[in-house]
Amino acid sequence: MMAMKKSLGARTLLYPTPVCVIGTYDRFGNPNAMTAAWIGICCSSPPCLAVSLRKVTQTYRNIINRKAFTVSIPSQDYAREADYFGLVSGSAADKFPSSGLTPLKSKIVDAPLVKEFPLALECRLYRIVEIGLHTQFIGEILDVKADESCLGPDGLPDIEKVRPILFSPEKRKYHALGRFIGDAFSIGRELIKS
Amino acid sequence: MMAMKKSLGARTLLYPTPVCVIGTYDRFGNPNAMTAAWIGICCSSPPCLAVSLRKVTQTYRNIINRKAFTVSIPSQDYAREADYFGLVSGSAADKFPSSGLTPLKSKIVDAPLVKEFPLALECRLYRIVEIGLHTQFIGEILDVKADESCLGPDGLPDIEKVRPILFSPEKRKYHALGRFIGDAFSIGRELIKS
Repeated sequence: MMAMKKSLGARTLLYPTPVCVIGTYDRFGNPNAMTAAWIGICCSSPPCLAVSLRKVTQTYRNIINRKAFTVSIPSQDYAREADYFGLVSGSAADKFPSSGLTPLKSKIVDAPLVKEFPLALECRLYRIVEIGLHTQFIGEILDVKADESCLGPDGLPDIEKVRPILFSPEKRKYHALGRFIGDAFSIGRELIKS
Repeated sequence: MMAMKKSLGARTLLYPTPVCVIGTYDRFGNPNAMTAAWIGICCSSPPCLAVSLRKVTQTYRNIINRKAFTVSIPSQDYAREADYFGLVSGSAADKFPSSGLTPLKSKIVDAPLVKEFPLALECRLYRIVEIGLHTQFIGEILDVKADESCLGPDGLPDIEKVRPILFSPEKRKYHALGRFIGDAFSIGRELIKS
């Protein structure tokens, strides 16, 4: 019965959201890093992701200018640094030196990766979608760069080695990855009527 | 050095992606449910999320027709059912009866929720963005419905009670939520130079 469900109002609740760090250069070539959770894959072909930013951010201006960005995925060892990248504006602080992390110039897009993070997606700006408070930047993923340490025997990243951080909106908490539940496109097969 | 990073090519890798079930009605009023991982919050005001679907899906046609959808978030107890909703097309099977789950008519949008899942977002179609193989549907979140059992003392959902499922692309695996790491907008404060 509907009465069992409680109405919470219009809220941006989705569990979990990923914790990603957007790398950009400003017009002087200074690297910036900003944490974003309003992000997701949005197309398989061309491979694209969408990240939503407010116009007041340095990263917004940088993407408009440079038409490129990276998405670096921190391991849980870097939760403190990832949180810092979301706390402070790139217009107020030089975030890389303060964080102790290293910007690594991408060879294929005009944006820096975070060297210490195990995985990064290099994106060129593909489309801008104005929504409301946030502007959505759709980036075409041109390449994925990974540390050897996060790859499985098949050469693909293993989420248990990446050890990403999960963010829960509203409560504003970070969690780690938990236990393996099952294989996708597999565990539901028993419900298919023969 | 860049040489330490391995190039994996252009791939849709993001860790983690959420596991969400999109609820819609077809033109005869039959409820359908489809699992989607290409999804994310895309705006705070108005509160919006974006979900990307291929044109061949029943859910694509239903959203075009009905201009509404819901996003139900399964707990890990329903991983098998969530996987099933992603394995089979709504044009080939009547998925709710086969899954054993119950469609619950939303009172505010023309779409059904999954009754057994702890959390659901009720969305009206706000914008359609053509990207490539996938079409992005931006939905304005009009309300969030939650089971009392997933709420904390403050009346907001607690991710440890929701117990959502995480999906890792490429390897196609499901994981559970892990341990609490720290508070967002807090644990990085020690890196702020005073």
